[in-house]
Amino acid sequence: MKRDRLEKVLGNMREMGIRQLLVTAPTSVLYLTGKRVAPGERMLALLISDDGRCRLFANRLFALKPMDGCELIEYSDTDDCVGELSSRLAPGSLGVDKDWPCRFLLPLMERRRDLAVSLGSPAVDGARMRKTEEELNLMRLSSRMNDAVIGCAIDSVRAGATEKDVAECYAGEAAAQGASGESFPSLICFGANCAEPHHDTGRTVLKNGDSVILDVGLVLDDYCSDMTRTVFCGAPTDEQKRVYDLVLRANEAGRRAVRPGVPLKEIDRAARSVIEDAGYGAYFIHRTGHGIGLDVHEFPDVSASSEAVCAPGMVFSVEPGVYLPGRFGVRIEDLVAVTEDGGETLNVKSHEMKVIEC
Amino acid sequence: MKRDRLEKVLGNMREMGIRQLLVTAPTSVLYLTGKRVAPGERMLALLISDDGRCRLFANRLFALKPMDGCELIEYSDTDDCVGELSSRLAPGSLGVDKDWPCRFLLPLMERRRDLAVSLGSPAVDGARMRKTEEELNLMRLSSRMNDAVIGCAIDSVRAGATEKDVAECYAGEAAAQGASGESFPSLICFGANCAEPHHDTGRTVLKNGDSVILDVGLVLDDYCSDMTRTVFCGAPTDEQKRVYDLVLRANEAGRRAVRPGVPLKEIDRAARSVIEDAGYGAYFIHRTGHGIGLDVHEFPDVSASSEAVCAPGMVFSVEPGVYLPGRFGVRIEDLVAVTEDGGETLNVKSHEMKVIEC
Repeated sequence: MKRDRLEKVLGNMREMGIRQLLVTAPTSVLYLTGKRVAPGERMLALLISDDGRCRLFANRLFALKPMDGCELIEYSDTDDCVGELSSRLAPGSLGVDKDWPCRFLLPLMERRRDLAVSLGSPAVDGARMRKTEEELNLMRLSSRMNDAVIGCAIDSVRAGATEKDVAECYAGEAAAQGASGESFPSLICFGANCAEPHHDTGRTVLKNGDSVILDVGLVLDDYCSDMTRTVFCGAPTDEQKRVYDLVLRANEAGRRAVRPGVPLKEIDRAARSVIEDAGYGAYFIHRTGHGIGLDVHEFPDVSASSEAVCAPGMVFSVEPGVYLPGRFGVRIEDLVAVTEDGGETLNVKSHEMKVIEC
Repeated sequence: MKRDRLEKVLGNMREMGIRQLLVTAPTSVLYLTGKRVAPGERMLALLISDDGRCRLFANRLFALKPMDGCELIEYSDTDDCVGELSSRLAPGSLGVDKDWPCRFLLPLMERRRDLAVSLGSPAVDGARMRKTEEELNLMRLSSRMNDAVIGCAIDSVRAGATEKDVAECYAGEAAAQGASGESFPSLICFGANCAEPHHDTGRTVLKNGDSVILDVGLVLDDYCSDMTRTVFCGAPTDEQKRVYDLVLRANEAGRRAVRPGVPLKEIDRAARSVIEDAGYGAYFIHRTGHGIGLDVHEFPDVSASSEAVCAPGMVFSVEPGVYLPGRFGVRIEDLVAVTEDGGETLNVKSHEMKVIEC
């Protein structure tokens, strides 16, 4: 067990009035135990009691080794794993993970009507949100590698290439540079596809006049990176130039607003105002950003409804965009870490508008 | 909406006594609506009422197009999506998806104490479990491609190669042949790693005397394949030959037991008995198989605790294995479809023991 991290979680449990906490997100289990398990549909659950006692429930298949400070409770495919867990819970408050699927929670609640169940994952998410200097170094390295790999992907953008070609180039180069995988399937969009922020990278072929969005991330030493650049195939139109400049100014305004004590919703406001003031507010249809770390999306949320406040060690994306349906789109995304007196942008890749001869 | 599939689900809801059902697994939403959405941490929920009315709650970001027979209810990142859903639920029974995360269920239960919440996904899983002839054809094609692609991966097994090299060869060939992706990250194990059924494919280098497990699958036209072959680097020892023969006989016995009316636990028994009778029962540490279709793991479960009974249209894996800790392991996996009078093995790749010169 990572004792310093466990202590933070125990402190948060006390503040939240939770006597026992069930941690089930694989990245939260990794954060606290150092063990990476991909449980699929099988149950993985770390039970933390407020006296510091830890028990990890895991399928025997995962062949976990004994841990310091945590009892390992193994079960087999034919065992009643919810029953194993249920029999070890004290009556009273139980905080559960926001990601825990209903197939475990509902049978547990059925058996144990004496439990007062609530969402307990903020106890872990709150600890994970504030990265240590060691974690920040890993996040810097992950983003530094992402900066390099996106460069190769941009170099592969040429007339006749498909979105999938560019995505494969990114994936191959990330693996070659030593990433353990991608943070998420690369979002590569050409032309009108750029106007769909969650377009599926497909077989669309690049043509002159297209905007190209590359939204990519990799995992290095367990930590995720995530960035977006928009480039143009052939000379951009005046409107494309205007929108690019606008989104870049929004990105800069968002990043400039970062410092301890600033509510996250003000970061969203700073970026969004630039786009609204230019009359494009209706075309910026998502939040400004999201926290990132062991997961590509984690706390805090950078949106108008976020209640979090910037504090040193937080890392999140600033990724405004403008999406003009049926025509083109622009998004520019960087990761920012909150420092003692401001913000540190983890990406160093240029923001200058890049035009590819097509 | 896929009306015939919806009718099956409505019939199941009636049998289960569920007035309204919340379908949230992306593959179940795909099954019923034909829409593929990767919602990440955002809420995606298809609400089906027992009178056949359908409403799909989706983030505006996913830019879904209107559907026949299903109202689209869009929300934005800053909207209270659980509130939107809550306000549209009738009092009484609500079946929820087994995969629905607690972060939606617990706040919903908090607001709506008048709801009787239960696991409702068997209404959809039960329909998905029985594939139509059209679906079976897609599954045959997916497995046929997997047979071809694993052949290329086996050809890349040579002394000096790493597990990751073989996995990359598989992924590259699957993409080249037109698969839309992998069903799961390939499990490639060399030597003693073969004794860990959930080993992480890594940088281990192949050497003479190693067993090699290749457990791979791809997605073609939304349907998953999944198969395992074990090969040997250099002449196998007598024990390796004996274990290979044993696992192959268990695989054959399991597949031979498949026909309508046979409980799935008897398929497990048929395969397991072969291994137990040879004295290796303690080394076969997982269930015999799992259902497969739009998801790589779905209903039914092929294990001693399964309550399902073979019926035409079911497709599942038969994948016995023997794992000798610190030494080697063997697993042989095929997909089998239940036909009107027996079982059809979807894989055609040879089971003959293959020895690679190392």
